[in-house]
Amino acid sequence: MKLIKGAVTAPKGYLASGIKSGIKMNKLDLALIVSKVPAVAAGVFTKNKLKAAPIRISQKHLQDGWAQAIIVNSGNANCLTGKRGLEDALKIVSTAASKLWVGKEDVLIASTGVIGKLLPLARIEKAIPRLVKGLSRSGGLSAAKAIMTTDLVPKTVAVAANIGGRLVKIGGIAKGSGMICPDMATMLCFITTDADIELKALKNALRDSAEDSFNSITVDGDMSTNDAVFIMANGLAGNPKIKYGTGDYRIFSGALSYVSGYLAREIVNDGEGASKFVEIEVTGAKTKTDAKKVALKIANSNLVKTAIAGEDPNIGRIAAAAGAAGIEIEEQKLDIYIGKIKIVAAGRVDYKVKAAVKRLLRQKKIAIRLNLNSGREKSTVWTCDLTEGYIRINARYN
Amino acid sequence: MKLIKGAVTAPKGYLASGIKSGIKMNKLDLALIVSKVPAVAAGVFTKNKLKAAPIRISQKHLQDGWAQAIIVNSGNANCLTGKRGLEDALKIVSTAASKLWVGKEDVLIASTGVIGKLLPLARIEKAIPRLVKGLSRSGGLSAAKAIMTTDLVPKTVAVAANIGGRLVKIGGIAKGSGMICPDMATMLCFITTDADIELKALKNALRDSAEDSFNSITVDGDMSTNDAVFIMANGLAGNPKIKYGTGDYRIFSGALSYVSGYLAREIVNDGEGASKFVEIEVTGAKTKTDAKKVALKIANSNLVKTAIAGEDPNIGRIAAAAGAAGIEIEEQKLDIYIGKIKIVAAGRVDYKVKAAVKRLLRQKKIAIRLNLNSGREKSTVWTCDLTEGYIRINARYN
Repeated sequence: MKLIKGAVTAPKGYLASGIKSGIKMNKLDLALIVSKVPAVAAGVFTKNKLKAAPIRISQKHLQDGWAQAIIVNSGNANCLTGKRGLEDALKIVSTAASKLWVGKEDVLIASTGVIGKLLPLARIEKAIPRLVKGLSRSGGLSAAKAIMTTDLVPKTVAVAANIGGRLVKIGGIAKGSGMICPDMATMLCFITTDADIELKALKNALRDSAEDSFNSITVDGDMSTNDAVFIMANGLAGNPKIKYGTGDYRIFSGALSYVSGYLAREIVNDGEGASKFVEIEVTGAKTKTDAKKVALKIANSNLVKTAIAGEDPNIGRIAAAAGAAGIEIEEQKLDIYIGKIKIVAAGRVDYKVKAAVKRLLRQKKIAIRLNLNSGREKSTVWTCDLTEGYIRINARYN
Repeated sequence: MKLIKGAVTAPKGYLASGIKSGIKMNKLDLALIVSKVPAVAAGVFTKNKLKAAPIRISQKHLQDGWAQAIIVNSGNANCLTGKRGLEDALKIVSTAASKLWVGKEDVLIASTGVIGKLLPLARIEKAIPRLVKGLSRSGGLSAAKAIMTTDLVPKTVAVAANIGGRLVKIGGIAKGSGMICPDMATMLCFITTDADIELKALKNALRDSAEDSFNSITVDGDMSTNDAVFIMANGLAGNPKIKYGTGDYRIFSGALSYVSGYLAREIVNDGEGASKFVEIEVTGAKTKTDAKKVALKIANSNLVKTAIAGEDPNIGRIAAAAGAAGIEIEEQKLDIYIGKIKIVAAGRVDYKVKAAVKRLLRQKKIAIRLNLNSGREKSTVWTCDLTEGYIRINARYN
């Protein structure tokens, strides 16, 4: 597997475009990704009980396992908009479908932005012909920019892998910098591939890769109403069809995990107000679920995140957050490392290393590791620090 | 029931004192509360799996249902201090017990402050005779000050109620302004009463009042390793002994709930960096537990708390947090009120009232109410906003 240039248009047979439709003031806000031929498709969605209109439509349109286009707007989440919100989303899907000459059910839709406002439907409908006309093999970056909200940078990646003697490509774009939390919380990610793959294999690969990437990152612990990851696989690479559980499946799955993991970490890197990237690994747990619970509790602790922002080796806050996860932890077995430095050994803090840890915390990338010494399972999550910048951004966002 | 002056020394037979022992730099940091006679006693504790040494000792000392003294230090949590931490806490208990001529098992101990550091035992032991000598009927305020950490104001309250023809008094002090979250998370509260009450009744009254007060407040969602509420009842009011479930029990329980609720709201009012006090009520839920889960999810949402700090009527964040609580919510039934203004009716945002809501949000006290319209149960929790001040305090606390 190797990194290649491009984003969602790197794989064969995909076009993309991103334009200013007038939802936002003079910014790219409408994106389209299209496969030249129908593609096997799957998605993972937010678990929030209040789901935005586009989420509900896309879930329905994915039921048959096929899609050919994804239309996305930023600046308005089309959530808490009742029956009218659903009708608006369906109209956008219909207009895009008729301009693209594809079936309505093969169009997926996603939205991100402010909750509770109706979409400026007339503007969006008027913009769709221009959006379709703008489709190109080099439109991936425009699409990545058009789905941004408070993101500072567009997030794109593409890889190629040899599967069954053919070069198979996977490309992706993502957005998300606030309201990021596990279970697809406020992030959008669109992945394309020219792999030929059966639906069951595609679904499993997506689910597994999402669990260890998008569901392992957290910026502020808030879970969005709109988050979704879509993947389309159009088969144009001409590889022998990938079946679940085979060697080819493992190669594809590994490449997809790389794409998902890369984009997920990019989202954390671009976390609202973030000044540091934090990796939290919990090892020695009885189950992987236990390890992830402890890691996420630490990653979501405001006290831990502010201590990291302040470059303060406040190890007690890490321990207290771990203890609050509801998982049995034996104090006398607990080891905690910052980078390679062991600061807690068998439950006791080693103050001799405090100065060294303080120096480590000046870095942009911080690694925290807890060994519970109670089992063999582990989990890694990624987060960022909590700064005054986060407050400034979120006290004024409208 | 009426409010009276005083704190833990308002009820008959209690003395208190607070001194500077040198744990902190020239600040009150050691407190003592003593009953002249042995008292029936109960406690509720943090559910954090990493419990500080004083918590483990006090849990043991409360097993027989009796206590006569409470010794508390601030500035050091004596947590993550291993066997040595336990030994230190026991030595403090022993020294206090011998100076007070009471049994070791009748001394409760609590600590608050930095985690992971050993106590300056010699200084504390040296200070105990002075602490005991300082005991007085007017020492409640000094004790309240000596248990403060980042608190800006001491928190005290006292009430009197007529029970069986006798005036029964209840007094309390509390601390806590960061790491506040349900399940006794980083707060300390010590309550005294001269009521004559059986242990079963005292335990039940404390548990119920804590559930609707200390376990219904949240500042930052972090759960401490050290939090505890202790109550001592010395019987000196001379009332007929209060039995569980009787009319007298209901009067006592009501007065205790008032004391707990008052102190809990004072803790939120003094939340780190808080500029606003927020009450969140969820009604129309199927169960009280459901209602509380939704209310706490909103109260712990950084996005909701920063919006309130910014006086931004971002109703979508409230709805999104509610949806993330894991409780079924029917969008088309959801009503949301800010103060008396209905801003979401049957799942749709009413933008006509936005300006009026924005004006309401300028106030210091904000009331948010969600009606799920799915049942008859409800719950109320209290929290504060999340400001740049919180970050400043917590990025630098050591």
